[in-house]
Amino acid sequence: MATAAQQMFAIAPAFGEASLTGEQRHLLVGKARWVSAVNEAGQPVVPTICLTRAAWNALQEERKTDDARLRTAWIATLFKLVGRDEPMPLLAVRTSAPHHSPGLMRARTGIVSPTRPEDSVDPARPLGRAINEAFASYASDEPVWTNVREQVRREQQIIIVQAMAEGSFLDFSSRDLQTGAIGPAPVAGARLPALPANVSEIALAIDRVAGAHMTCLVAVNNGKATLVSARPSAASAAADLEAAVDRVERGFWSPREAVMRVEAERLPQLLHPRLVADGDRQPLATGIGVSPGAASGMIVFTADDASRVKARGKHCILVAVETGPADIDGMKAATGILTARGGQNSHAAIIARVSGKACVAGVRAMQVDPVEMTCRIGDTELRAGQQITIDGTDGTIFAGALPLSQPHIGGAIGNLLNWSDGSRTIAVRTNVESVDSAKTALSFGAEGIGLARSEHMFFTPERMVALRRLILSENENDRAAALKGLVDYQSGDYAALFKIMQGKPVNVRLFDPPLHEFLPRSDEDIEETASSLGLQVRALRQRLERLAEVNPMLGHRGCRLAITYPEVLEMQVHALLAGARAAAGDTGEPVDLEIMVPFVTSSREVNWLRNEVAAITKRDKLAMSQPVDYRFGTMIELPRAALRAGDIAPMVDFFSFGTNDLTQTTYGISRDDAPAFLASYKRKGLYDEDPFTTIDQRGVGELIKIAIERGRTANPNLKIGICGEHAGDPASIRFFAGLGVDYISCSPYRVPVARLALAQAQQQN
Amino acid sequence: MATAAQQMFAIAPAFGEASLTGEQRHLLVGKARWVSAVNEAGQPVVPTICLTRAAWNALQEERKTDDARLRTAWIATLFKLVGRDEPMPLLAVRTSAPHHSPGLMRARTGIVSPTRPEDSVDPARPLGRAINEAFASYASDEPVWTNVREQVRREQQIIIVQAMAEGSFLDFSSRDLQTGAIGPAPVAGARLPALPANVSEIALAIDRVAGAHMTCLVAVNNGKATLVSARPSAASAAADLEAAVDRVERGFWSPREAVMRVEAERLPQLLHPRLVADGDRQPLATGIGVSPGAASGMIVFTADDASRVKARGKHCILVAVETGPADIDGMKAATGILTARGGQNSHAAIIARVSGKACVAGVRAMQVDPVEMTCRIGDTELRAGQQITIDGTDGTIFAGALPLSQPHIGGAIGNLLNWSDGSRTIAVRTNVESVDSAKTALSFGAEGIGLARSEHMFFTPERMVALRRLILSENENDRAAALKGLVDYQSGDYAALFKIMQGKPVNVRLFDPPLHEFLPRSDEDIEETASSLGLQVRALRQRLERLAEVNPMLGHRGCRLAITYPEVLEMQVHALLAGARAAAGDTGEPVDLEIMVPFVTSSREVNWLRNEVAAITKRDKLAMSQPVDYRFGTMIELPRAALRAGDIAPMVDFFSFGTNDLTQTTYGISRDDAPAFLASYKRKGLYDEDPFTTIDQRGVGELIKIAIERGRTANPNLKIGICGEHAGDPASIRFFAGLGVDYISCSPYRVPVARLALAQAQQQN
Repeated sequence: MATAAQQMFAIAPAFGEASLTGEQRHLLVGKARWVSAVNEAGQPVVPTICLTRAAWNALQEERKTDDARLRTAWIATLFKLVGRDEPMPLLAVRTSAPHHSPGLMRARTGIVSPTRPEDSVDPARPLGRAINEAFASYASDEPVWTNVREQVRREQQIIIVQAMAEGSFLDFSSRDLQTGAIGPAPVAGARLPALPANVSEIALAIDRVAGAHMTCLVAVNNGKATLVSARPSAASAAADLEAAVDRVERGFWSPREAVMRVEAERLPQLLHPRLVADGDRQPLATGIGVSPGAASGMIVFTADDASRVKARGKHCILVAVETGPADIDGMKAATGILTARGGQNSHAAIIARVSGKACVAGVRAMQVDPVEMTCRIGDTELRAGQQITIDGTDGTIFAGALPLSQPHIGGAIGNLLNWSDGSRTIAVRTNVESVDSAKTALSFGAEGIGLARSEHMFFTPERMVALRRLILSENENDRAAALKGLVDYQSGDYAALFKIMQGKPVNVRLFDPPLHEFLPRSDEDIEETASSLGLQVRALRQRLERLAEVNPMLGHRGCRLAITYPEVLEMQVHALLAGARAAAGDTGEPVDLEIMVPFVTSSREVNWLRNEVAAITKRDKLAMSQPVDYRFGTMIELPRAALRAGDIAPMVDFFSFGTNDLTQTTYGISRDDAPAFLASYKRKGLYDEDPFTTIDQRGVGELIKIAIERGRTANPNLKIGICGEHAGDPASIRFFAGLGVDYISCSPYRVPVARLALAQAQQQN
Repeated sequence: MATAAQQMFAIAPAFGEASLTGEQRHLLVGKARWVSAVNEAGQPVVPTICLTRAAWNALQEERKTDDARLRTAWIATLFKLVGRDEPMPLLAVRTSAPHHSPGLMRARTGIVSPTRPEDSVDPARPLGRAINEAFASYASDEPVWTNVREQVRREQQIIIVQAMAEGSFLDFSSRDLQTGAIGPAPVAGARLPALPANVSEIALAIDRVAGAHMTCLVAVNNGKATLVSARPSAASAAADLEAAVDRVERGFWSPREAVMRVEAERLPQLLHPRLVADGDRQPLATGIGVSPGAASGMIVFTADDASRVKARGKHCILVAVETGPADIDGMKAATGILTARGGQNSHAAIIARVSGKACVAGVRAMQVDPVEMTCRIGDTELRAGQQITIDGTDGTIFAGALPLSQPHIGGAIGNLLNWSDGSRTIAVRTNVESVDSAKTALSFGAEGIGLARSEHMFFTPERMVALRRLILSENENDRAAALKGLVDYQSGDYAALFKIMQGKPVNVRLFDPPLHEFLPRSDEDIEETASSLGLQVRALRQRLERLAEVNPMLGHRGCRLAITYPEVLEMQVHALLAGARAAAGDTGEPVDLEIMVPFVTSSREVNWLRNEVAAITKRDKLAMSQPVDYRFGTMIELPRAALRAGDIAPMVDFFSFGTNDLTQTTYGISRDDAPAFLASYKRKGLYDEDPFTTIDQRGVGELIKIAIERGRTANPNLKIGICGEHAGDPASIRFFAGLGVDYISCSPYRVPVARLALAQAQQQN
């Protein structure tokens, strides 16, 4: 390491060159780094010297002795701040830490230069006092326990001392915080005054070296700006993205570098839905749009309820008088936030912008009663559970769930994702079952469907009736009639889905949810179902009670349904084959069909199911001139299936990991019920991450590893996919990429995130 | 292998000795074996020869040629059936298979001896036809696919040909089928006539060699019995046990052999509860007691309901007009069976005796309406869900759940278990929380408590009220008052439990079930709770709705309760310490206390809980003069806990595997909901065993193995126990013994089973 004398040096001397050694350069972090870089780019910078804690401590040690060699060196360094033929200037002392932390000392300015040598190191004199306080303020940033490495890091902490500049001081941003265009740009809303020409050069110089939005403090004097200080500032996701692509165009970064430096987590913020234009629609009220994008969902009044609704896969709008730190988890769980008070800088607005949620604040026409769980907006009273739509772009609020138009990919994000695609080999598919969602996903670059949840095909009233007839019918004729109807309904849907996917792989998962989810619940529904089936209401109720489950998540669902109701399996396979035949007939291109069975626990189940599907297909082939090919595979979403992967793999073409269910069973946590304790777990530091958001590498991840290893050993041709919601989470994607999966499949809005995160992971490997 | 000529030989020649070769002896299975053994013991046996399928096939091949050497050997063998100076007798042909199967040919008797050499092998003549049919009848017992080994086994199949004996024929049992006393004993209920003296010798001879109850067919002539045939017969569990111990006393078996040969699965049948005598009690009706023991439980009318009730850990009595094969699973799930029709040999009676269930049949005063789910017994109408008690010993039926007295261990079972204890090192503990159950378990040889479910301490109305106050109270005073009361209640219970266990280890598991299980459900309960807490009924209902869970098995339960409601943890630990202090004060002996936390997923949870418990204990130590020591450990009952065992082990003294929950999560099967599909799975051969009865070695078992290995590596002093219900299942116990666990803990009635099964497993290893 450099000696103490070498750890006090000029970054930007009042005249001459800095000529730093490599070791000195290594010490430059924070402001010192940016000041030095701008100086080296030839832009004016106030005279600045740098001092490490080690050097300052050595100076203090020397004071106890008769020696004065180090102090002499210090005074020589201080003289670097003085211009030729100029008097000693007033001084400023600033911290210069790699990361901002709230405890750091604010700049001390207007410090009178020491007049006697001993004053330059005396902690009782202004300069020494300021330096001591600056170093002391780092403490808040330090761990309590320090090992040798921490100790070294502490010794290398620096402060800077500057000659005070003359003129007027001004903050500007190196790039626009909303658009990312190269600056100078305003920092705090206000417009910038007329600026000296060299400000643009300073902005460009610092952008090149920092590769981030920087807030620069300059002194303007005689039509020239001199840099005093600079620090990174938070920009919108759009601005960061545009800046990254602009840096590639300017030659500051390679495309590879741009791919690595854009945060994949922030991409979804760029893909905001918008309200479909409709001039006649009257808002309930208008507040302040503080975080852009439109959102609709059911009204909730507490953070807990928001978490609960999200856990059930539904959207909600969190409605509150105002929000506070206790609401953060709920705000993140909500699709949008609506507050009666507050504005652009309210808690709700800040959190919403950071987390990319739509937010309307300051709605004066709204009264909220969180106890009664109602709110009144204008003349309308709304209760918890009712649908509402907000537009965070213009602050409008509407009753009901209005149609939203989806964003598309182009411009900067298009460039970045194209660069990403060049760096990845793992495919990105999507979890959709409707033609509309498939279109959205394709526009975002999806390379196939990794999970089409076949049960969604029954979510219309008339199909539900037919399905109920099938489940509840007790004679062959009824059942056959129900089956025929259901096959016809679905095959049309499948044909449309297959056509839109144009030969890209489509993975259809057979019926998964507990049967009773499809049965009537309300009295009206029960009466109607009973009469349509010719059953007594009482008898139907008894059957429904028997179908109800204590723990439906672990109940009669998944392939257990196909095994106990083989007619449901047969209906589904027939519909798939008919749909594939129709699509292929229309397009002249065969459908790349994958049939997937969920919730298996053993190779015997898989074998039974494979044989059944093969038998149904064989009967179909005999009846039809145009055979349909398919690949057969299974979800791996239970610990036992992961452990028995070696037995299962030889029977299938692919595994697709259902990480949601695998997390539920590995942890013994029902996602629906987790909000009751997960908040407490996070507060107590018992879980780092919500295991349903970011994959648990050490538990669930080990099971996935075991399954991939055993599966590939037993069947080297096995394809591996991930289709749980973790497939849209960048941290999880990095882990999956390391396991060598063949594809991941996420919701449409996560496709761009997955493309970028996979490229980042694969570039690094 | 012997030549064809050597595979036709006399087991019991009409005169002279049999003098069998080792290879011939090896061929003797089934009847041939017993006839030969009795003959060698010097008892009279009808002349008998034996013929293999290979030899018979060779004889048939020879018929196609000019050769007659083999036929000559066959005729020579047939002549072994003819006494000196006697005419050719009538012959009998019998199969002689190692196991009885229904398709086997019944004995063909009165066959005229062949008069010409060629008639002895001619399939068109009586002897050849009978031999052909005998071999053909084995086919039903054979697998369709045959490998080389199966082929050899088939070639070695034998039949026997006997000279028809004169005199009267009679069946007797070698031992009494109910008591196991050495015979002759009646076979079919009727008393035996006066018998020749040598029948006892035959019984003893065959018992020595067969080591099982045998039904012997003898011909009695001139005051002497001659053995014709013998086959094993099914005896009661008590008879098998008494016979085993008697064989040790007679020197037929070593104690080790007796331990190995008694079926551990059948022991529970010997431990029948009885009705506590009460002369005044009037039965509703009396039927025929067809399977001994008393039982009480809720009335169910279908096998499915019986399975459901059992899955919830409750007792039920299956009530039916009569039972059939479709009911078998339900009958096994029921605690007792009650039928309107049938008698000693009805389907219900046979299945009940085999499976050790109490059963009353032929209740003429009972009408059953399975559709309306009611039955009328005498003048009383009873509905599904109501409690009933039956006594299968005397056939009486009572309304309500009557007190039952528990059996104790002594006599033969005592001897056998004492021998067992000498062969095992793995301890047997029990899962109990009441003093009564603890007494029962101790009387059965329990060596400690492996699982005391602390929540059971709250199953009385007044404690439930206090607990509800704790859970629902919103101010400190209410909570403190509730806590104090709860500690006092429990510490008395713990003191009593600790005292009865006299220094044996007692493992108390902290609160496990979902909180809402302790909350009011009925309108009456809710109103009462609301008023006792000073809450609005509506507000209370809202809170209760929030506490309800979608999948309670995976919800807010186990250590998650201790973490979110630390006051519950504190209350429980205080009560344990106070109880231990009181017990130690009374007995002068310290309590061997283990505190166990359930449902953990990570080492951080365990660490947090350990620190909390230690802190509570430390505060207690400061306040009290007499400190209480304890060991701290955790259940391993979730896949993640098993995988992270290496992190968890250094923080604990023991692991106890909760195999019920571990099976539920590894398979993704809720035990409550499994009956809906498990029957179908068994029918289709998808699961061999119910994984909740016998541990799944290849899935759940692998997780247990991983956890033990990682746990012991990280903490060599770690003690390992098993406390799920599998700990009472012999097949599972063999597996656990192989894993080197330190103890297993089962329900009291399973303690003898565990002692025997462990001894069997450890003797074998």
